[in-house]
Amino acid sequence: MHTLNDQRAFASESMIRLMRLALEAPDLGSAVSPTLQELVDRTAASGSAYFHSSNQVPTYHARAAAGALPEGPAMDAIMAHGLPADMPLMQALTQTRLPLFFDDTATVPEAAGFPALGVRSLAAAPVRHRNGSLIGAFLMHTFSPHAWSSDEAGLFTAVAETLAGLTARLAAEEDAVAAQESALRALGLGLEFKDHETLGHTDRVTDLALRLGRYLNLDARTLQALRWGSYLHDVGKLAVPDQVLLKPGQLDAAEWDIMRGHVREGSRFADALGFLPPSAHDVISGHHERWDGQGYPNRLAGVQIPLVARIFALCDVYDALTSNRPYKHAWTPEEAQAELAAQSGRHFDPDLCQAFLELLQHGSNDLQDS
Amino acid sequence: MHTLNDQRAFASESMIRLMRLALEAPDLGSAVSPTLQELVDRTAASGSAYFHSSNQVPTYHARAAAGALPEGPAMDAIMAHGLPADMPLMQALTQTRLPLFFDDTATVPEAAGFPALGVRSLAAAPVRHRNGSLIGAFLMHTFSPHAWSSDEAGLFTAVAETLAGLTARLAAEEDAVAAQESALRALGLGLEFKDHETLGHTDRVTDLALRLGRYLNLDARTLQALRWGSYLHDVGKLAVPDQVLLKPGQLDAAEWDIMRGHVREGSRFADALGFLPPSAHDVISGHHERWDGQGYPNRLAGVQIPLVARIFALCDVYDALTSNRPYKHAWTPEEAQAELAAQSGRHFDPDLCQAFLELLQHGSNDLQDS
Repeated sequence: MHTLNDQRAFASESMIRLMRLALEAPDLGSAVSPTLQELVDRTAASGSAYFHSSNQVPTYHARAAAGALPEGPAMDAIMAHGLPADMPLMQALTQTRLPLFFDDTATVPEAAGFPALGVRSLAAAPVRHRNGSLIGAFLMHTFSPHAWSSDEAGLFTAVAETLAGLTARLAAEEDAVAAQESALRALGLGLEFKDHETLGHTDRVTDLALRLGRYLNLDARTLQALRWGSYLHDVGKLAVPDQVLLKPGQLDAAEWDIMRGHVREGSRFADALGFLPPSAHDVISGHHERWDGQGYPNRLAGVQIPLVARIFALCDVYDALTSNRPYKHAWTPEEAQAELAAQSGRHFDPDLCQAFLELLQHGSNDLQDS
Repeated sequence: MHTLNDQRAFASESMIRLMRLALEAPDLGSAVSPTLQELVDRTAASGSAYFHSSNQVPTYHARAAAGALPEGPAMDAIMAHGLPADMPLMQALTQTRLPLFFDDTATVPEAAGFPALGVRSLAAAPVRHRNGSLIGAFLMHTFSPHAWSSDEAGLFTAVAETLAGLTARLAAEEDAVAAQESALRALGLGLEFKDHETLGHTDRVTDLALRLGRYLNLDARTLQALRWGSYLHDVGKLAVPDQVLLKPGQLDAAEWDIMRGHVREGSRFADALGFLPPSAHDVISGHHERWDGQGYPNRLAGVQIPLVARIFALCDVYDALTSNRPYKHAWTPEEAQAELAAQSGRHFDPDLCQAFLELLQHGSNDLQDS
């Protein structure tokens, strides 16, 4: 027989378990999934979902779901385009701190739209940003009218009060990481802004470097450092005068010295950022070193050159060869690959060069975007 | 009489309460403070503290404390410089998932250093980054030897397992926010990197704008937007050719057109960032508008110009006047203030101009740094 205290202890411990799972999850969707499953297991709900709106976008997208969801074209549209912020339910959630319970969606204006999905009873709890704005909603539903019991309401309310706060913080972390990423990429793009010839180079070379990194099974931290280093590899060119950076003809020896200085300037700039991991620095400081020791600025050779810099150098040269520049037309992929192969063991690490050529010729079986 | 289930329910509910408090706290220190107080209230601990290491810094700094802490020069040094990562306790914490309990610090090598502080019993729990590295430690202590009871150990372990996960996530959010801040500032500094005459301008003008914003009691979100806008106000100058940007003499009419283009280029760049709040955009797009409608690019007048842009314009002109430039010496603060006063109602919003002059002449009673 369960006493009230048994129930209290069980509910609280269950909540702590759900919070721990959420804290260990790699992303927001997996953080809330166990909670949605718990709602389906412990209430009459047929299904449950969490909808979230990132960074001022006026649409709430499904980030996780459990149990049975509505089906059909209207639901397909919601999964593709999200719930609009002006739908009555989301408007109602902006006005309340407590969850809303609708035993029959056909009878309440706040649930407009849900009967057409086949959803007949609905519970909805708001998730708010620390500034008070609505950023998400926990929903659970049945496909026939259902009177939500006080136990069900209690559980859902406890979820709303506890998990919602955690969800909001995880969302804040996600937003901050996305903004950091965007700011770092923008730093790289700052140069393209001036040097129109290199338009798109930063994103293309970052994409290539990540594809090669994943092909080599690098871990997530190294891939992150590779991505950040790729964004910033040429940031030191901001310090190169236009007359050298944008010169249409060949550079003379003095001008080459200035141009090569972009590597040291970039390292200095990366230092000033303060939070770049050493591997990201390595991409910036080492991307013009050569396997044969004839590169700059430090004439490192072979495996003295950090792995990420050796990876990046391949991608950087390949993108330069296959792009139009003032002084040359774009090479075809085949011509560029032949040049990489010719430079294997001279400019490039031969093992990495082989892997990169395999990747370019046969594609990667990792087709996910970064 | 308390049953075991009463105790379980109480402990779990207490943990949920502590997590909710942590989730609502504005920063990491205030997030863990209620937990430290709970440890002091519910165990024999005289005091408790949370030490944290941000972003690869090999030192753990006190971020929050409760109860009685050790006193004296050695403790002063710890509060000032932090606990070094190579001290035996921190080394021991890198090796364990479970908390460590020392009934008498004088007898265990892992607690070396603590007896000299007067700390005789100690409990320590690790906080880890998701990548597994140690980022912090919850500590509690007594000033005489004390055999930690199983209840005390149970509570401390529960804290370690639950709050530590949350603390790590809050730290991740804090790191990402700091990195975003640093990347945005670096974007602004990118220009100074090229235009050495403006060295320090970004930080000085940001500081002035925040001081004026706080003097005007702007809320935290508006201050953040003002700070980001200040970092980025001249980012569009990256698109201005060197021959115009760095020209030592007067610009001709065509060159002025190009120079004025930096405002629109900056807005375009800010759009590309994707996450800037509208008020930060307003600083970038509106900082060369004038109160009398004679500014650029949109010839806005009076309160058509967003408040943050009117605030920033004052600070930008003041810093330019009081700095050396190729074509002029730095004006004295008195000369610059006289010029601002003369431009009140012409270049500048008269109310804001008066407030800024008050602030410059009498100082702010808000002397905190941003």
